[in-house]
Amino acid sequence: MSKKYVYLFTESDASMRNLLGGKGANLGEMLKLGLPVPEGFTVSTEACTRFYEDGKQISKEIQAEILKALSVLEKRSGKKFGDINNPLLLSVRSGARASMPGMMDTILNLGLNDKTAEGLAKLTNNPRFAYDSYRRFIMMFGEVVMGVDMAHFDEIFDARKEEKGVADDAGLNADDMIYISNAFLKKYKEVKGEPFPQDPVEQLLAAVAAVFRSWDNPRAHTYRRLNNIPYDWGTAVNVQIMVFGNMGDDSGSGVAFSRNPATGENEFFGEYLFNAQGEDVVAGIRTPHQIAELEKDNKEVYDEFKDIAHKLEKHYKDMQDLEFTIERGKLYILQTRAGKRTAQAAIKIAVDLVKESLLTEKEALLSLDPRQLDHLLHPTFNAKVLAKETPIGSGLAASPGAAYGRIALSAEEAQKLVDKTGEPVILVRIETSPEDIEGMHVAAGILTARGGMTSHAAVVARGMGKCCVAGADGVVINEEAGTVLINGKKFKTGDYLSLNGTTGNIYAGKIETEEPTVSGEFAVVMGWADKYRALEVRTNADNPHDAAVAKGFGAAGIGLCRTEHMFFESDRIKSVREMIVAKTVEDREKALAKLLPIQRQDFVEIYKVMDGLPVTIRFLDPPLHEFLPHTEAEIRDLAKDLKMPYEELNETVEALREINPMLGHRGVRLSLTYPEIAVMQTRAVIEAAIEVTKKGIKVKPEIMIPLVGEVRELTYVKDYVVKTADKLIKDAGVKLDYSVGTMIEIPRATLLADEIAREAEFFSFGTNDLTQMTFGFSRDDAAKFLGDYYNKQIFTLDPFAHIDQKGVGKLMEVAVRLGKEARPDIHLGICGEHGGDPMSVEFCHKIGLDYVSCSPFRVPIARLAAAQANIKNPRK
Amino acid sequence: MSKKYVYLFTESDASMRNLLGGKGANLGEMLKLGLPVPEGFTVSTEACTRFYEDGKQISKEIQAEILKALSVLEKRSGKKFGDINNPLLLSVRSGARASMPGMMDTILNLGLNDKTAEGLAKLTNNPRFAYDSYRRFIMMFGEVVMGVDMAHFDEIFDARKEEKGVADDAGLNADDMIYISNAFLKKYKEVKGEPFPQDPVEQLLAAVAAVFRSWDNPRAHTYRRLNNIPYDWGTAVNVQIMVFGNMGDDSGSGVAFSRNPATGENEFFGEYLFNAQGEDVVAGIRTPHQIAELEKDNKEVYDEFKDIAHKLEKHYKDMQDLEFTIERGKLYILQTRAGKRTAQAAIKIAVDLVKESLLTEKEALLSLDPRQLDHLLHPTFNAKVLAKETPIGSGLAASPGAAYGRIALSAEEAQKLVDKTGEPVILVRIETSPEDIEGMHVAAGILTARGGMTSHAAVVARGMGKCCVAGADGVVINEEAGTVLINGKKFKTGDYLSLNGTTGNIYAGKIETEEPTVSGEFAVVMGWADKYRALEVRTNADNPHDAAVAKGFGAAGIGLCRTEHMFFESDRIKSVREMIVAKTVEDREKALAKLLPIQRQDFVEIYKVMDGLPVTIRFLDPPLHEFLPHTEAEIRDLAKDLKMPYEELNETVEALREINPMLGHRGVRLSLTYPEIAVMQTRAVIEAAIEVTKKGIKVKPEIMIPLVGEVRELTYVKDYVVKTADKLIKDAGVKLDYSVGTMIEIPRATLLADEIAREAEFFSFGTNDLTQMTFGFSRDDAAKFLGDYYNKQIFTLDPFAHIDQKGVGKLMEVAVRLGKEARPDIHLGICGEHGGDPMSVEFCHKIGLDYVSCSPFRVPIARLAAAQANIKNPRK
Repeated sequence: MSKKYVYLFTESDASMRNLLGGKGANLGEMLKLGLPVPEGFTVSTEACTRFYEDGKQISKEIQAEILKALSVLEKRSGKKFGDINNPLLLSVRSGARASMPGMMDTILNLGLNDKTAEGLAKLTNNPRFAYDSYRRFIMMFGEVVMGVDMAHFDEIFDARKEEKGVADDAGLNADDMIYISNAFLKKYKEVKGEPFPQDPVEQLLAAVAAVFRSWDNPRAHTYRRLNNIPYDWGTAVNVQIMVFGNMGDDSGSGVAFSRNPATGENEFFGEYLFNAQGEDVVAGIRTPHQIAELEKDNKEVYDEFKDIAHKLEKHYKDMQDLEFTIERGKLYILQTRAGKRTAQAAIKIAVDLVKESLLTEKEALLSLDPRQLDHLLHPTFNAKVLAKETPIGSGLAASPGAAYGRIALSAEEAQKLVDKTGEPVILVRIETSPEDIEGMHVAAGILTARGGMTSHAAVVARGMGKCCVAGADGVVINEEAGTVLINGKKFKTGDYLSLNGTTGNIYAGKIETEEPTVSGEFAVVMGWADKYRALEVRTNADNPHDAAVAKGFGAAGIGLCRTEHMFFESDRIKSVREMIVAKTVEDREKALAKLLPIQRQDFVEIYKVMDGLPVTIRFLDPPLHEFLPHTEAEIRDLAKDLKMPYEELNETVEALREINPMLGHRGVRLSLTYPEIAVMQTRAVIEAAIEVTKKGIKVKPEIMIPLVGEVRELTYVKDYVVKTADKLIKDAGVKLDYSVGTMIEIPRATLLADEIAREAEFFSFGTNDLTQMTFGFSRDDAAKFLGDYYNKQIFTLDPFAHIDQKGVGKLMEVAVRLGKEARPDIHLGICGEHGGDPMSVEFCHKIGLDYVSCSPFRVPIARLAAAQANIKNPRK
Repeated sequence: MSKKYVYLFTESDASMRNLLGGKGANLGEMLKLGLPVPEGFTVSTEACTRFYEDGKQISKEIQAEILKALSVLEKRSGKKFGDINNPLLLSVRSGARASMPGMMDTILNLGLNDKTAEGLAKLTNNPRFAYDSYRRFIMMFGEVVMGVDMAHFDEIFDARKEEKGVADDAGLNADDMIYISNAFLKKYKEVKGEPFPQDPVEQLLAAVAAVFRSWDNPRAHTYRRLNNIPYDWGTAVNVQIMVFGNMGDDSGSGVAFSRNPATGENEFFGEYLFNAQGEDVVAGIRTPHQIAELEKDNKEVYDEFKDIAHKLEKHYKDMQDLEFTIERGKLYILQTRAGKRTAQAAIKIAVDLVKESLLTEKEALLSLDPRQLDHLLHPTFNAKVLAKETPIGSGLAASPGAAYGRIALSAEEAQKLVDKTGEPVILVRIETSPEDIEGMHVAAGILTARGGMTSHAAVVARGMGKCCVAGADGVVINEEAGTVLINGKKFKTGDYLSLNGTTGNIYAGKIETEEPTVSGEFAVVMGWADKYRALEVRTNADNPHDAAVAKGFGAAGIGLCRTEHMFFESDRIKSVREMIVAKTVEDREKALAKLLPIQRQDFVEIYKVMDGLPVTIRFLDPPLHEFLPHTEAEIRDLAKDLKMPYEELNETVEALREINPMLGHRGVRLSLTYPEIAVMQTRAVIEAAIEVTKKGIKVKPEIMIPLVGEVRELTYVKDYVVKTADKLIKDAGVKLDYSVGTMIEIPRATLLADEIAREAEFFSFGTNDLTQMTFGFSRDDAAKFLGDYYNKQIFTLDPFAHIDQKGVGKLMEVAVRLGKEARPDIHLGICGEHGGDPMSVEFCHKIGLDYVSCSPFRVPIARLAAAQANIKNPRK
């Protein structure tokens, strides 16, 4: 028997999501539940795979299945595809396994041609409706399927509106629509060199193929990469009988949520437009009405809809995002799916659903996306400062949080400004479109002049957790001039602007933001996470402030305290430089003696903040060269400072320059050459610990030696550390435990982890360097070519963001196995940037690490990810 | 029962080499054979290990064992240690498992003090002998055990010789020796602040400890590293009853070989000095007599000695190196060991021993050191040119081969000159000492003014395979002035000199050298090697000349043809640069089109030379930046050349600059960005192959893609290669096979070798890069700190010279296993520099590679190493 590629909605249900995509599976499920859903069929995701295997062709076999399903629709609807008197019209929409908003393309009103449009006008006695539908179809099909630039159509449409002196499409009548349809057809022929296709079957197959092709477009690649969606999933295509929201003022289309997607409040929430098709709401073409207004207009439909929304929420045990159309007073549901929501809303909904006994705590934890918590951890404006500021404008509070940044008027400009200034950027656009995704990604906040709460900008910003103010109608953008007018006040590219996505307010200039805290429902969720996780979560913090922030976010200790960051501070860099240019051990020790009290004080303060929690201190890691100045002027200044001849200092700087500094004289290699540095650092760590111990504060320093690739490196340095530490402790007469461990970040170290474990009491995987060396990629240089790697599908995930489980992960597994063989109680963790990435946290859980360590703001994310990992794969 | 640390010679035999060192084990063996060997005992290598474990102390337990063995010697000899009337005197000498000439220290005449010296004078009625022995002892003990600078003693000795107007020690009488002994004692006390130790037991224990300590000196470290001797072997100490070659003219000491160590001729060969102790010959203090002269002086002793030498040779089945002393006409053998020999001699001896049925072919192969073949592959002077040259002087032909180079008068100067000029250097010294080892290592040839065929310079040079002319008495060196007089002709540091180590001739200026060939007995041995090896041996060659040389050395194909070397040549670099600065694909293709015919012609010529043997061509590997100029002046020139503004070109140069170029945009990553480069290179490879195929020459190009870390990289590029190649072959209508494979040089590639093998028909391990990335070492930068790594015993072997089997090797094994799983007939090889290193070749054999590829001059070495590997571990 040959494979089945096409399923009627009446054959499908929610369990078939992988095969039919989310949209198709849910349409079937809703039909089963007896809800008012127009019938249709789904061309499966396997057909998409087959499409690419067949060289981007729909095989005869699948074509036949489509036509067969079409004939069933004809029979059931009593209409005929292409029939002049009673034409069957279809929508063709993508529907992947995971929702990909704005990425895929939709075609409505398919089946219209010169004759059926005329027939539809007669049949409905509504030529405005018929030709409004036809012009929409020509435009969508022309752009999406045939690649005609939308600007051609917009120009015609705008010219007509101007000619008639109307503000929007609602002001155009039947004649206008007929005029516009004809003008569109003429323009189409002019651009494509052939007439607009009149054969409905040809239209249908071309539209299905276009949906499949859109799976492969660059925007889809970008979205998938940012959201970790595998390329090989493919998309399904849903072909559905059209219902029409543009049949007059008793018709309309809209989008609604079963709860408020911004706050999570249990309130029916949404927007709709009269006499419009669904795309109008999403595209933000007219500013829509609140769903609550529908209650006034048509209480019966409103109640029915609200009832359906609640039913679906209970059924799916999750907040639902619904698309609906009202055709001449009758309600149709066109889609339901788990609604995208802000992190605040997600947390509130999860806690509420547990309270409502719809979810267990474990289910509630699994319902959350740990990456989204990031949004809760974004800054807010300082309330006192804010009180003194007056907004210069406002828009919809489309995505919460506060941000300031320099104005950029395009995605490219945003990218350039960030690259150039290293400062945050506010992307200001009339409205956003999928082409802006990369720019939105780098922006700290987004401001649009048009569009509602469900506009592209709002949906995507919420998905990304960016602060967004949408539809701010006082905003006038002149991209060419590089200026923005906000209620008459003029700004240029690069000027500062501040946005409050929680209130919708816009401010001139830069308002400093403040760190968030974990409280209320967020704290409840974090409590559950701690209850169910096995991994310990530590933080990477180099100073008391970061340590305190991380502790507030629930860090169980410091997993990485980088000592070199302390060296860069202005009050100590001079001594560091003296140490580097020292020609003898004595001179070097003299310079180190100046650094000792400073570094010791740093540790005292960190120990005090952490108050008994473990603190892992990594010894000096970067090449010494990094601490020296590089321009002639700077070197001359320093030479004067150090009272040495410029030539001599310059020679030292030159001698330290390396061809591949990443693989040069750094980490433990420095201690091999200059053991006196390790001795000074040991003194600082231990003397500080003795000092706080004497004050009754518990402390257990963990000394971590970086870049070990051979056990004898560790043995050599450890000998200095232990001798120095033991003597200090003995002399002080206190009881103080410390341990000595190592980073595992050199591929060779993973292979010889058993030997290394005999010397190291703990391992901390430095997955940043391990990734660089395992791939042979310099992170500093790879940006130049990684773009090609993503575009050409060589990589689908960024190995610096997510642990490369097939390669780097394999080495980690080897190291874990060997390490435990040699030292069964070895403490294992990770302190690379991956420590805060949920996918990587899950991997670390699986391979048996004891802890992850990440930046302070990612601690709650890691706690949740760790809980999810242990719920999915419980540790024995 | 406690461990035994001390063995009498009568308790030991040759099988105990690991425990007792070579010298000790052989002394026992010779006693067993009934040869005249003075009795003694050996303090074992385990005692050395124990010595270091005990913090460089000889434990009481071992001291007791030594004293017990001493009492047995006293009983057997009838003498007493420290007895005034009949003192037992001892030699104390090191003896490691592997011979380490000049590295370890020796003390003779131990047991002498003011009283026993006087007693010895009386007993022998030979005060000159007694005080000659005493002054030697004070000097050796003072320097070696107590660290007194030898210059103090030399000064006294030389002053006395001058005072007496004599040329050497032979001219000094008993009174002189007494005077010198007293002066030495006085100087000793002055330097050390305490009198010379008079207690013989104290002397003995101090001497044993000094030998143990000398195992740890920097010269020993260097020697071991250069010769791959593990640190943990330790050395034994041999304590032996003294016999005296300095008892008058019926006494003497010398060194002899059972065959000629320079040529391998089956002739008894050696040197000796009358009235001298053994050290005098080795140190080159007086120029010694040929052993043949002994036949005239004392035929009985000569015949006995020759007889013993032959007996030992048969017994050990190898040419022997013997130390002997004649005491008042009686012969004693003090040492036998396998004699160091030149490569020519080694080959001749191996072939002769097979002819003499002493060895099988396999044993003969195993008797050779593959590294030594290197010497046979060194250049000789062009015979025609040489015929026109007149030597300006001559010395002993101490180590064969020809060399030219710039004069350096010290080891440091040699190193500096090589670093500075990159040109060969001739090290010119009065005589060499262990301190000169590093300098000898970098020199192309060595010239000494003093010393014989067994002097330090000669022995070490032969060991290293350096050309050496020794004892050239027309040579007068003024190190301070930086000048050398050779028979009156003056040279300065940096001037050219040419040496013929095969004839002993010295020439002024630079005589060009010529490549050697494999013929005669060398060819016989190579024939055996080919018979017994399993590994195929290919070569790394980038041009027809190198390919021809390698083929002459028996290469079975080219394993690595680097295409970038072709790009650097002056006639093509401009087109390469045009390609790099191209802003569009079209411009790049235009530049590539200019390179195509040039590169195609290169391949045509290489194919012709290899005539049917496989040729593996690696596609462009280095970062493009390497092809561009870097100084402002060069960039300005190039900009003019390319007719583009300087600023624009400079921007391109800057944009291509990388922070870690080793891990940057290179290898397959270039092809990902610019597939047109791969297309051009494919055209060149395949069009050239078609051209020679049409001429009836067989060719099978193997296209190798470098730096693959992810199979999709290979898939992407291979697709271009295969499409281009197949079309060309089809269009040409010829039958032509080619294959596509990859380098395995990124750690990740080893871990995912199964996936990669599904696309790659062969793997070639690029162990240079693999070592860099596995260790996280940049080869360019590591030199700065690797010195510390060797000194501090972190590394004992250079991972860039010998495959790091524990780390890098483990990754290779993984890749071999996975590669064969996915593609059982995959062809596996190595083309890193390790491919010519015997230890690494053995490892490659063990892990199941099919071939090794190395530089042309290492091909015979690899062939022999491959045979040895297969003899030791035969492949099924």
